[in-house]
Amino acid sequence: MTHLSNTHNDQRGSGMPIARYRPFPPVDLPDRTWPSATITHAPRWLSTDLRDGNQALIDPMTPARKMTMFDLLVRMGYKEIEVGFPSASETDFAFVRQLIEQDRIPDDVTISVLTQAREDLIERSVQSLVGVPRANIHLYNALAPLFRRVVFHAGRDEIKDIAVRGTQLVMKHTENYLDATVIGYEYSPEIFTGTELPFSVEVCEAVSDVWQPDDGREIILNLPATVEMATPNVYADQIEWFSRQLTRREHTAISLHPHNDRGTAVAATELAMMAGADRVEGCLFGHGERTGNVCLVTLGMNLFSQGIDPMIDFSDIDEVRRTVEYCTQLPVHPRHPYAGDLVYTAFSGSHQDAIKKGLEDLDKQASDQGVPVSDLPWEAPYLPIDPKDVGRTYEAVIRVNSQSGKGGVAYILKAEHKLDLPRRAQIEFSRVVQHRTDTEGGEMAPEEIWSVFSAEYLHRETPLKLNSVHTSSAAGEKDRLSVNVYVEGELQTLTGEGNGPIAAFVDAINGLPQDFDVRVLDYHEHALSAGGDAIAAAYVECAVGDQVLWGVGLDANIVTASLKAVISAVNRA
Amino acid sequence: MTHLSNTHNDQRGSGMPIARYRPFPPVDLPDRTWPSATITHAPRWLSTDLRDGNQALIDPMTPARKMTMFDLLVRMGYKEIEVGFPSASETDFAFVRQLIEQDRIPDDVTISVLTQAREDLIERSVQSLVGVPRANIHLYNALAPLFRRVVFHAGRDEIKDIAVRGTQLVMKHTENYLDATVIGYEYSPEIFTGTELPFSVEVCEAVSDVWQPDDGREIILNLPATVEMATPNVYADQIEWFSRQLTRREHTAISLHPHNDRGTAVAATELAMMAGADRVEGCLFGHGERTGNVCLVTLGMNLFSQGIDPMIDFSDIDEVRRTVEYCTQLPVHPRHPYAGDLVYTAFSGSHQDAIKKGLEDLDKQASDQGVPVSDLPWEAPYLPIDPKDVGRTYEAVIRVNSQSGKGGVAYILKAEHKLDLPRRAQIEFSRVVQHRTDTEGGEMAPEEIWSVFSAEYLHRETPLKLNSVHTSSAAGEKDRLSVNVYVEGELQTLTGEGNGPIAAFVDAINGLPQDFDVRVLDYHEHALSAGGDAIAAAYVECAVGDQVLWGVGLDANIVTASLKAVISAVNRA
Repeated sequence: MTHLSNTHNDQRGSGMPIARYRPFPPVDLPDRTWPSATITHAPRWLSTDLRDGNQALIDPMTPARKMTMFDLLVRMGYKEIEVGFPSASETDFAFVRQLIEQDRIPDDVTISVLTQAREDLIERSVQSLVGVPRANIHLYNALAPLFRRVVFHAGRDEIKDIAVRGTQLVMKHTENYLDATVIGYEYSPEIFTGTELPFSVEVCEAVSDVWQPDDGREIILNLPATVEMATPNVYADQIEWFSRQLTRREHTAISLHPHNDRGTAVAATELAMMAGADRVEGCLFGHGERTGNVCLVTLGMNLFSQGIDPMIDFSDIDEVRRTVEYCTQLPVHPRHPYAGDLVYTAFSGSHQDAIKKGLEDLDKQASDQGVPVSDLPWEAPYLPIDPKDVGRTYEAVIRVNSQSGKGGVAYILKAEHKLDLPRRAQIEFSRVVQHRTDTEGGEMAPEEIWSVFSAEYLHRETPLKLNSVHTSSAAGEKDRLSVNVYVEGELQTLTGEGNGPIAAFVDAINGLPQDFDVRVLDYHEHALSAGGDAIAAAYVECAVGDQVLWGVGLDANIVTASLKAVISAVNRA
Repeated sequence: MTHLSNTHNDQRGSGMPIARYRPFPPVDLPDRTWPSATITHAPRWLSTDLRDGNQALIDPMTPARKMTMFDLLVRMGYKEIEVGFPSASETDFAFVRQLIEQDRIPDDVTISVLTQAREDLIERSVQSLVGVPRANIHLYNALAPLFRRVVFHAGRDEIKDIAVRGTQLVMKHTENYLDATVIGYEYSPEIFTGTELPFSVEVCEAVSDVWQPDDGREIILNLPATVEMATPNVYADQIEWFSRQLTRREHTAISLHPHNDRGTAVAATELAMMAGADRVEGCLFGHGERTGNVCLVTLGMNLFSQGIDPMIDFSDIDEVRRTVEYCTQLPVHPRHPYAGDLVYTAFSGSHQDAIKKGLEDLDKQASDQGVPVSDLPWEAPYLPIDPKDVGRTYEAVIRVNSQSGKGGVAYILKAEHKLDLPRRAQIEFSRVVQHRTDTEGGEMAPEEIWSVFSAEYLHRETPLKLNSVHTSSAAGEKDRLSVNVYVEGELQTLTGEGNGPIAAFVDAINGLPQDFDVRVLDYHEHALSAGGDAIAAAYVECAVGDQVLWGVGLDANIVTASLKAVISAVNRA
C-alpha cells in the first residue's frame, strides 16, 4: 500500500482566458485597525428596495406593490427609505407625491430621492418633495477612471466640478422649493470601489466644502461598491483609508452601498462597519442590479445572532419574505440565510439526533430553573438561532427516511409519483403528515406517505363521486356541462354553465340542496409525463364555506382531473 | 429651512429577544498576517456535491443523477470528489461500487468517502473502496463543547480517544482491505468553529501522531465551519492561529469546509485562504445542510475575475447550472453570482448607456490594434467579467422601456397580460423579439411586444383554426372528441380518440392528409386570475415534424385553450 501526497497540485490549467483579467490592486494600509475590531451596535440602515431594488426587477413594482413595500419597511423599523428616482421616472415621481399627499410617512422616517447632477433633474427631484416634513436628497456622479475615459470623456477637474456644482444646485433648489422641509444631503462618488482613493477623497472634500457640515448639519458620504471588485477585506481597507483622510469626520456619516458581484457583499459590509462606517444601504433579500444589493435581512439577523439589537423587527420573517416575493415577483432562495425554506431543517440522522438532544437539554434547563425556554441563552447543535425567534419552527417540514437514503414528503410525491404540488398545497399536506406522525409517533415510510396522501386527497368518495362528464363549448357561447355524480351514494345528473368546465361544474354542485358554497381560488395542472397520452394532475384551492383547502385530481382527461380536484376539496371539507 | 442631523440614531429597539444571544469571542491574534495577503493561486478543490450537497436535498439524487453529477465534476476539472457516506447509506455504498466496478474514475481523480469513527462503520467504508486505484478516507468526530456536553456526555480525553482510535482503525482496515490502493487520510474536528482552538490543535496533533505524515504521506486536516458563527475575519483568524500551532505543517494540507449560515461563506473561505489554507471543500451553487456549503462556482469565478486560473472550466456556465438544477431539483437563484439569469443584464438606462460605450471602446481598441476583442484586457462598466467567457451574453435578454419605468418581455406578458410563460417558452419568445429588434432596430414598446406575441402565437389562422369542440369521457373508456376545424379555410369535422382531449385532438389532426406529424412534449396551464370563470392560458411544446416549438392558447375553457395551443404550434411550424 502506498500513500497519497496531494500537496503538489494535480489540478491542470482550465484553459479559461485568464490573461484578460488583472488582480485588484491592494490598498497600502499595513496599520489597518479593522481586523481587531468587533461590531457592537447596528448601523443606520437605509432601504433602497424602492429605488435600486425596484429598478432591477423583471416586473417593476406597480404603485400598489410599492406602497405595500413601503409599509412593510416602515413596520419593520427602517427609518431611512430611498423611495425612488423621480427625475428619471414618472411613476417614481407620482409615488413620491402620493406618499407626501396621503401623509403616509411617519414622523420618525426620512425618505430620500436619488438624482443625477444635471440642473433640470435636480430641480425635478426637489419638486417631487414639496410638502414633505423631512427628506434627504441623494446626488451622485461617476468618478471612476473607466467612466471618465469611455463614458464622459472628461478629466478629473470636470468630474469634480459636476459634483460641486450639483451640490450647489441642490442647495439652491431646496431653498427655493423646500423652505418648510428639514433637508439632509447625501453624496455618492460612483463606483467608489473602482476609483482612485485620493480622488474620491478630493471630490468628497470639495462637496463637503460646499455643504459645510456642522453641528446639526451632517453630510452623508455614501461609498458604493457599485460593482464588487475584490475580496471583502479590500473594501474595508478602502473605507478605513477614506475615513482617516476625511476632515469633518464627526459631522459626516460614512455610508456603505455594497453590491454582490463576488457573493461577498454581506462580508464586505460587516468588515467595512468594523472599519468605521456608520450607515448601510441595501435591500431586503438583496435585490438590485445584477447580483443585487447587500441583503438587509442577513445583515440584521447576523447582528441579532450575536446579541446585538438590529433595530429592525424580524420576528415574522415569513411575512417579510411573502411580502417581498409579492412585491418583487422574485423568489427567495430555499437556502437564503435565516429565511429560506430549508434553513431550519435537518436532513442527516446525526444532525437530527444532535438537535433533539440539544432541545431536550434546553427543556431540562428551563424546567430546572423554572423559566420558559425562551428566557434561556440559545444553544443548540446546527441551529444558529432559535427558529421561533423569527416565527419559524425546526419541525415545520417533515423529513422521512426511505430505503433510498433520505427523503421527504415532497420527494416521495415528486420522485415516486411525479406529483409536483404547488407550495401551499405542500405545506397543507405537510401538516397532515405531521399530525399523523405526532399522533402515531415514529417515522413514516414512503409507502405510508403515499397512502396518507391517497386517502386524504384521492380516495374520498363522499359526499361526491364523479361518474362521467360531457362538455360542450362553441366560440362566443358559455360552456355547458352535464355530469353524472354520486351524491351521498345516489347517482344524479347535474348540469351547469360557466366560462369553462370548472366554473360550470361549480355552478352545478352549488345548486345541490347540500349548500356546499364552493369558490375556486387557484388551480394548477401538469402532466405526469410527456406526451398527449399522459395522466394529468390538477390541484385546486377552494373556499368551501369558510374553510380554504386544496383538492387533487388525477385523470388522463384534464377536465376530469380538474373536476375531481374540486370534488376532492369538497369531500375534505 | 433646517437641516437633518441623523448622526444620532433615530432607530429604536426592535423588541427582538437579543438577550438570548452572545457575541462570538474574538481570536487573540493581534499580529495576524492575512489582512495583508493576497490570493495568488487556486486552492486544491474538493467537491462534496455527492455527499454534503446530496444529503441535504429535498429530492435526493437518484443513481442516474449521481452519475450525471460525478461526470460533470470530472469534466469541469475537479480532482478530489467526495462521493458519499457509504456506511450510512446503502445507495451511497452501491454508488461507490458502481464507480469502481464500471471504471468511471479517471486516473487523476481521487474519490473520498466520509465515515464516523466507529469500527463497524470504518470497516464498511473501507470495504466500499475495494478495487479503487486511489482514494481518501475522511474521518470525523465532534469536538465542540456543546456536543461533548449534550450529545456525547464525554470529556475531552474520551473525545480525543475517539479520533485517535478511529485513525488507528482506518490504518488497520485499509491495510487489510486496500493493499492495492493508494490511500490518503483526511480528519475533521467537527464544528471546528465552535471548538476551543487549543483543543482542536491537540486532537489534530494526536491524530497526526498516529498517521505520521511525512514526505509522500500527507495528512489533510479539514477545519469545518459546520455552522458559520461569526464574521468571516474570525474564521481567518482561527485558521491562521491553528496553522501556526501545528507541527508537521509542511506535510499537512489545511482544508476549509465552510457553511453559509451568515451569508459569508465565500468571504470566510477567501480570507482563510489568505490565512494559509491549502484546500477548499464546497458544492456547486452552494448546496448542503441548511444554508448550504460554500459555492465552488462563485469561488472559482472570483479567482478567474482576478486573472488567477481557477483550474476549473466554467466556460459553459449554463450547462453547469442546468446539470446541477437537474441533479438537485433545486433552482439557482436569478441573482446568483456569475450564473443567475439576471447577472449580465442591465435595466437602468444609464447603466445600459455606459455598457454600450464601454463595449464600443473595446471594439475600437481591438480594431486599432488589429486583434479580436477577446485578446484585450476586459474592462466594461457594470460587467465584472465578459459574459462570453462563460458562454453567456450581455444581450441575451431583451429589456424594453415602458411608460411605467422599465420592463421586459417577461414583464409585459406577465404584468400586463397575466401570461406566465414556461421558461423554455420565454427563451423562445425572447429570440423572436430579439430577431425583430435586430432586424428593425431600436427599442420596442410594450404594445409592440404584445402585438409581436399575439401575431406569433395567438392569431395565426392557417393552416388550422378551431371552431367548436365536443368531448365525451366516462370512467374506464378512451376519450372521444369531435371538433369543427377550418383546415386551410375549409370547415371540417374531425374525430379522434385518446387518453384525454389533447391526445384525441392530436390523433384527429394527425389523420389529415397534410401529414403534420405532431407529438406533444410538454404542457403547462394556468388561470389568468382566480375563480372558476377565469380565462385559462395553455402552453404546449410540440414536435411538429423535426421542429420543436411552443404553442399558446387562451380560452375560458381549459380544453379549448389546450387545443388552441396545439394549433398555435402547428400553425407556427
